[in-house]
Amino acid sequence: MTRRVAVLTGGVGGAKLVHGLLQIMPAENITAIVNTGDDFQHLGLHISPDIDTVLYTLSGKANRVQGWGREDESWNFMEALRELGDEDWFALGDRDLALHVVRSYRLAQGDSLTAITRDCSMAWGIGAIILPMSDNRVATFLDTDEGLLEFQRYFVESRCAPIVKQVIFRGSENAKAAPGVVDALYAADIVLLAPSNPYLSIDPLLSVPEINTALHSLRAPVVSVSPIIGGRAVKGPTAKLMKELGKDVDNSSIAAHYAGLINGLLIDSGDEAPSGIQVAKTDTLMRSHFDRARVAEAACDFAYSLGTK
Amino acid sequence: MTRRVAVLTGGVGGAKLVHGLLQIMPAENITAIVNTGDDFQHLGLHISPDIDTVLYTLSGKANRVQGWGREDESWNFMEALRELGDEDWFALGDRDLALHVVRSYRLAQGDSLTAITRDCSMAWGIGAIILPMSDNRVATFLDTDEGLLEFQRYFVESRCAPIVKQVIFRGSENAKAAPGVVDALYAADIVLLAPSNPYLSIDPLLSVPEINTALHSLRAPVVSVSPIIGGRAVKGPTAKLMKELGKDVDNSSIAAHYAGLINGLLIDSGDEAPSGIQVAKTDTLMRSHFDRARVAEAACDFAYSLGTK
Repeated sequence: MTRRVAVLTGGVGGAKLVHGLLQIMPAENITAIVNTGDDFQHLGLHISPDIDTVLYTLSGKANRVQGWGREDESWNFMEALRELGDEDWFALGDRDLALHVVRSYRLAQGDSLTAITRDCSMAWGIGAIILPMSDNRVATFLDTDEGLLEFQRYFVESRCAPIVKQVIFRGSENAKAAPGVVDALYAADIVLLAPSNPYLSIDPLLSVPEINTALHSLRAPVVSVSPIIGGRAVKGPTAKLMKELGKDVDNSSIAAHYAGLINGLLIDSGDEAPSGIQVAKTDTLMRSHFDRARVAEAACDFAYSLGTK
Repeated sequence: MTRRVAVLTGGVGGAKLVHGLLQIMPAENITAIVNTGDDFQHLGLHISPDIDTVLYTLSGKANRVQGWGREDESWNFMEALRELGDEDWFALGDRDLALHVVRSYRLAQGDSLTAITRDCSMAWGIGAIILPMSDNRVATFLDTDEGLLEFQRYFVESRCAPIVKQVIFRGSENAKAAPGVVDALYAADIVLLAPSNPYLSIDPLLSVPEINTALHSLRAPVVSVSPIIGGRAVKGPTAKLMKELGKDVDNSSIAAHYAGLINGLLIDSGDEAPSGIQVAKTDTLMRSHFDRARVAEAACDFAYSLGTK
């Protein structure tokens, strides 16, 4: 029996989990539904950081040392941009630019982010289905001690230094799920929430009404892979943000955050299981391709074991 | 006495003449009025090939071997574009892209091509004033045996192979001269027409009514530097095009083309002087920086010698 998996994911960590899934099951059985709350306009270009990271990771183009962007990248565009005196806080690699230019051009012509992402995925031979969460604009904003900041201004320009009071998803209440998203969720035998930042990367997905409704009403088990290991986040501002939002940096907080939504939580072998939720353990740190496959397998096995609701 | 020069110019050859002027007189006395009939939209970017060539040439960034684009250029954007299966007939260098992205972004925000060109010129320390002929869209089209072609499709994609029946400047009848253009013409002590292609690079400038009227009514002498040497064009499709348009490839045709507009024609030392026009001679081929200065000086001296009308 071929089983279908839908994964809700943000960028780096989530992309690794999807890459792990690709190693253990037929690509066509995998649908990755990707956060677009981080999308923004920069120098007139439409940039979709999480979709880009997923596309680069699954096509083997991701820069694994840097954690974002492409391998074998060059930076001559940025150098020329600085010569012109233009803002250079967001780094755009020469190769990376191709995706942004093509995407922006096609969006301006009326093509959807869904169609553009699909074509790019096909051009790069990615078998899995990659869907933006929505073709409508949902923008993550941070209410901070330095005022209201658009996600990339907080994340990249301010390096997550401002203290966050609240995370806001503008436009989500009127956003439709992208074509295929709701169908993929209902068709899935299991649904995974990737080990992406719950507040910044998964919550935007959950803020889209159709996605939220589907997740609460489908019969397939939903398993979250925890982004917390030993009281710390693997990467990025998760731990800092959790503290600022008044949460303990542990799996109880993750379980509480996803309460009513998930049926199980996959946590790191060394961590204590929170109460009130089904838990499985594995080494959740994904350093190698093998790690990715192992974590993906552990998440799938765990989800299958939970059975339908 | 400080004398002011206005130059009507296209890309490569004209840029060399302006660069020559910069070597023999104060930069602030030079105004280059640049053809924008070649401008086009590509992948959503606004590209101004002749302005780019002038900017790159005057700031020392031009690729002198290639004849277009920048030195020390890299092509990783193009490689990534091809991976995506996108059209690659127009080469965009990684550094070159910065200018296109910034220009497109600023135009979309409502800035004028004049303002953008000025800021770029200032950022790169170019003292001369560089003006687009118009902030309105004038588009050069070629009526050919292969149908109506936009300039870059003819020039770059089709490598000038189609046989041209007519050259058309769409939008010119309603185009206003860019701010500063008419003033610069009237303020000039001499006006030069650069050795750019008369039909493809200078005629678009002349097709703008205010520019045409100013050139016909100003008292300053107007001198054209011929693009023909020994019955051949120095570069590009000039000779082929002249034949297709039923002209002899010689200076008589150039003089006839500019009849009523120019007061003098600067031709190559080895060429025969056409009748009915004042002529001066120099070695008009501009291979070195020294050649550029020499031709610029010969053109200026000749123009000064003609006196006001």
